[in-house]
Amino acid sequence: MNLPLRPDPKLDLVLERDIDVPVDLVWKAWTTPEHLMPWFCPLPWTVTDCKIDLRPGGEFSTTMRSPEGQLFPNRGCYLDVVKNERLVWTDTLLPGYRPSPKPFFTAVLLFTPKGNATHYKAIAMHGNEETLKQHEKMGFHDGWGTVVTQMEAFIKNGFKMPA
Amino acid sequence: MNLPLRPDPKLDLVLERDIDVPVDLVWKAWTTPEHLMPWFCPLPWTVTDCKIDLRPGGEFSTTMRSPEGQLFPNRGCYLDVVKNERLVWTDTLLPGYRPSPKPFFTAVLLFTPKGNATHYKAIAMHGNEETLKQHEKMGFHDGWGTVVTQMEAFIKNGFKMPA
Repeated sequence: MNLPLRPDPKLDLVLERDIDVPVDLVWKAWTTPEHLMPWFCPLPWTVTDCKIDLRPGGEFSTTMRSPEGQLFPNRGCYLDVVKNERLVWTDTLLPGYRPSPKPFFTAVLLFTPKGNATHYKAIAMHGNEETLKQHEKMGFHDGWGTVVTQMEAFIKNGFKMPA
Repeated sequence: MNLPLRPDPKLDLVLERDIDVPVDLVWKAWTTPEHLMPWFCPLPWTVTDCKIDLRPGGEFSTTMRSPEGQLFPNRGCYLDVVKNERLVWTDTLLPGYRPSPKPFFTAVLLFTPKGNATHYKAIAMHGNEETLKQHEKMGFHDGWGTVVTQMEAFIKNGFKMPA
């Protein structure tokens, strides 16, 4: 079933890039906590906790830690899971589809094989321009770009962060 | 796949009832605009518009009209669709999973066959006690109860509202 995506340039942030690792390894890096935590935050930020229940309505939560030691928990759930192709989650719903007290955005990841490489597209969808601008100020483009670079290096190095 | 439901008596409103119509007709009444609009509001309120794109991420929107003629549009999308069994939608996400500017609740409908009748369970899940209380004040129990009674009569009368 096709996802009825409705892109809106006024409300979406998009990051698109070709990365030099195969699509099944990108999927692995995005869907197992041990292979997601090392690269998921721009260093020196780290991820101290990650829960993945890989099915629609299932939990996707992470806790980020600032270099000063402050913790930032993010709770959400998956909406659409198609292995090696598409992953959609949102923080507007908690696990089991309960409305979240802090709704912010929905993330859509699209992975397309290009030989042994992957065309990687990340879309952050917002409900209004205010949230979009807030996400831009939080550093969406730099941040999401940095973590893709980190993920690529992590996968190439045999699922270990390069020294 | 089982829905990872996480009921919470402090945040959920529940309506449960046995109704004397078969489960496939209940499904039909809930999933086709022409068979949903006549019973979906407690009369003399009416539904003037209904959009159904019956798949996860697909639109479920209705517009309700008060007896004084005021229109109340509600936009949302489906999250989980299992024919004759389960229907989940939310107004916290617009069609295509975009965060909604007016998030309020997620609805879970569970239909279980009991011979030629149906055990009907409706759950309204909220993100906090404030929203729950607001929904209670709006008349959840009377309202949802009334429309189930209307739906049962509508189905029994051959998908026509009794005179």
